[in-house]
Amino acid sequence: MASQSDRKATVIDGKAIAQTIRSEIADEVRQLSQIYGKVPGLAVVIVGSRKDSQSYVAMKRKACAEVGIKSFDVNLPEEVPESELIGKVHELNANPDVHGILVQLPLPKHINEEKVLGEISLEKDVDGFHPLNIGKLAMKGRDPLFEPCTPKGCLELLSRSGVSIKGKNAVVVGRSNIVGLPVSLLLLKADATVSIVHSRTPDPERLVREADIVIAAAGQAMMIKGSWIKSGAAVIDVGTNAIDDPTKKSGYRLVGDVDFEEASKVARWITPVPGGVGPMTVAMLLRNTLDGAKRVIEK
Amino acid sequence: MASQSDRKATVIDGKAIAQTIRSEIADEVRQLSQIYGKVPGLAVVIVGSRKDSQSYVAMKRKACAEVGIKSFDVNLPEEVPESELIGKVHELNANPDVHGILVQLPLPKHINEEKVLGEISLEKDVDGFHPLNIGKLAMKGRDPLFEPCTPKGCLELLSRSGVSIKGKNAVVVGRSNIVGLPVSLLLLKADATVSIVHSRTPDPERLVREADIVIAAAGQAMMIKGSWIKSGAAVIDVGTNAIDDPTKKSGYRLVGDVDFEEASKVARWITPVPGGVGPMTVAMLLRNTLDGAKRVIEK
Repeated sequence: MASQSDRKATVIDGKAIAQTIRSEIADEVRQLSQIYGKVPGLAVVIVGSRKDSQSYVAMKRKACAEVGIKSFDVNLPEEVPESELIGKVHELNANPDVHGILVQLPLPKHINEEKVLGEISLEKDVDGFHPLNIGKLAMKGRDPLFEPCTPKGCLELLSRSGVSIKGKNAVVVGRSNIVGLPVSLLLLKADATVSIVHSRTPDPERLVREADIVIAAAGQAMMIKGSWIKSGAAVIDVGTNAIDDPTKKSGYRLVGDVDFEEASKVARWITPVPGGVGPMTVAMLLRNTLDGAKRVIEK
Repeated sequence: MASQSDRKATVIDGKAIAQTIRSEIADEVRQLSQIYGKVPGLAVVIVGSRKDSQSYVAMKRKACAEVGIKSFDVNLPEEVPESELIGKVHELNANPDVHGILVQLPLPKHINEEKVLGEISLEKDVDGFHPLNIGKLAMKGRDPLFEPCTPKGCLELLSRSGVSIKGKNAVVVGRSNIVGLPVSLLLLKADATVSIVHSRTPDPERLVREADIVIAAAGQAMMIKGSWIKSGAAVIDVGTNAIDDPTKKSGYRLVGDVDFEEASKVARWITPVPGGVGPMTVAMLLRNTLDGAKRVIEK
């Protein structure tokens, strides 16, 4: 472990920031309920019994309950026909008490994910993954109805830590539809100079070394070394990778895409894994659900 | 003028490449006509009498005629009500002989451009500017119905000049919805490492200096100096800027965003202005119209 003395970076406490945001959301939900007698509703759909999916879904449902968002639970068996799942989505689209619909991924192989996600009403696409939302996210002068949760959480961590983005040199490692690509687009809209490096980049460290802001979303355990980080940078680590650790009862521990111990000696800000970006994703999902509900209820 | 001897770069002849593409398109149009008895149709809508718009529109209509694409001319007066323009778009959407609809921009101030463009049927959005098309362009595993013409033309110039993109370091100068942003997304999909610099970038030369591929789309006359260019780079200059030139009868000449004379001594490939990207935009518009028509006619 790096001792406190040789760590230079402020560790961004995602858990604490997420908790603050959840309190803010709870307050707004309470106001909405007092004024209009209505609360936001989030449908969380899970197909099958994957352990990891079940634990994510349980977490999301619990988070809803804590802030007063009504959670609509849809649990479907592994072998559910695609048409039945789509029928369920249509039902939720039509339900005026549901303001957000989340279909937990991955879906079983016999189901076309793109097709199912495409059936979710744009107004309830709280994940923000609909191509129309992504297009509006990309385009100057347009705004999506919802920004994807994890990218939005990354920017929120920066802004709540006092890190300005405008004119900064930002490097995003990874170009997934879920994180790397949309976070690049958000940073560009926030006036950062943005570079995107990925699995086909022969020398990712070249660009990372010059970054004022690094968003690591490659899904490669500790690929980003301390020597890659520019002194004074802000490092947001989206990676969550399990690596063997015989000292743990479980036999593994979670690490990010960044070598935290090394990088925290060089960076000015850094997020830990776990406890950095992770808690923000759920907080942003609640935020999106609340915003979607306000658009309907306050109208 | 740089003499032939100190010019290192191959000048990419956009006019000649565009002509080749137009011949290819003419062949395909002929085949389509022979097999199905139908030809592609492009509606070009112009509102008002701006000189520049009229000359672009005339050029596009003439280009259609040359390759056998039927052009549907819609000329509306400057003061046409928005509703009437939208009505016209709906009419063209419904016309089975029209496979592409292009509304020449800019529109008069009393008309909401975003609203009008949003009314064009996705299947006929040959400009590729609909946010759903842009979203699909951005997302891995998705494909837009049409790629925007100028960005597509830039990649076509690279591929027809034998410049590979995969794994290369590409820098895009400018982030407009029309060129900078979509060309960045296309380069990323083609596996380049992509950096986007823009008006808020304090030191654009820092990234440009390391670029294997430079796409200049800033709209700033000769802002990119020869000293910014990496030896051996491919430089695609999208800029078309008029600067004073008393030696010309017109009093001005057109220059790009790149200092051509300087850059051509360092780069390996470079496009001239005019005669580089410009002719490709129209060629790609014809290509998109043909592709749109084939989707309908061959179905």
